[in-house]
Amino acid sequence: MATGYTIWLTGLSGAGKSTIATELTQVLSERGQRVEVLDGDVVRTHLSKGLGFSKEDRDTNILRIGWVCDLVARHGGVAIAAAISPYRAVRDQVRASTQNFFEVFVDCPLDVCIDRDVKGLYAKALSGEIKQFTGVSDPYEPPLNPDIVVNTATETLATSVARIVAALEARGYLPAAREAVAALA
Amino acid sequence: MATGYTIWLTGLSGAGKSTIATELTQVLSERGQRVEVLDGDVVRTHLSKGLGFSKEDRDTNILRIGWVCDLVARHGGVAIAAAISPYRAVRDQVRASTQNFFEVFVDCPLDVCIDRDVKGLYAKALSGEIKQFTGVSDPYEPPLNPDIVVNTATETLATSVARIVAALEARGYLPAAREAVAALA
Repeated sequence: MATGYTIWLTGLSGAGKSTIATELTQVLSERGQRVEVLDGDVVRTHLSKGLGFSKEDRDTNILRIGWVCDLVARHGGVAIAAAISPYRAVRDQVRASTQNFFEVFVDCPLDVCIDRDVKGLYAKALSGEIKQFTGVSDPYEPPLNPDIVVNTATETLATSVARIVAALEARGYLPAAREAVAALA
Repeated sequence: MATGYTIWLTGLSGAGKSTIATELTQVLSERGQRVEVLDGDVVRTHLSKGLGFSKEDRDTNILRIGWVCDLVARHGGVAIAAAISPYRAVRDQVRASTQNFFEVFVDCPLDVCIDRDVKGLYAKALSGEIKQFTGVSDPYEPPLNPDIVVNTATETLATSVARIVAALEARGYLPAAREAVAALA
């Protein structure tokens, strides 16, 4: 069985987690890996209907995503979680209970996320229409020891993805491109 | 990628779903398949904490198990769900949204399940201590067109499992034992 692993993208809403997940999926799939994206919003439909945004509900949601990621990894797949996952303790709990956990801090200053406001959520959070919004009215605790930090405000998507891919290669989760080609020859 | 599939065991509490799941896991693992058991009770801890036993909550739980089974199957694994899953409509909904869905009706007369009462739950249900208990105070809707019916009151565990295995072979989900041996030679 191939060795599976979990790429955990954590960061503010609008930092670029889903965009990176989509691009990474493309690259890893081309390199022959089976990828499953667990996007926070999608997961809330399938796994966590009924959960809200209290700390307890957020933590339950994250543990559930972690459990499913580990399931995918145990079956040799690559799970990519794209979830704000604002609380450090529960992320570390997932790390401890998940084989081959690779944490990516998708860093982006709050003001840049607010300027982007892709989903229009920051406007609603700032006006008070949405409560418990991470970064505005709810905390975000950045990782202290992530496996890699990418900064989507200062580097391009291609650069962020290339750096993650290089780190996965260095970690041995992904055969280096040259080896991959050799294996196909 | 290997073709994954889902074996869905439905039946009353005490009918023998978990026992069959355990034995099937053994057999399929020996035949080289990667098996993931999604046992109703275990799943309630990891995926469905907070859900109760109303029809709506039961249906949510079943859809969630189905979603995870399909995930495992998409990654080439064999998912075995062992869950009462009393409602026909939601089982059929899972079937419709799951590739390679193989439904096993683990049939056992209610009075036999009550006699066994492995977990002591029927006594509590009959005394009214537990509400909404399938078969006692809540309905069980047997499948109309299951892929196979095993009857744990009239056949041995070994027979039930052998019949399921033969049906999986006939369906093409499991290479016949002789081919499996040839493949190893």
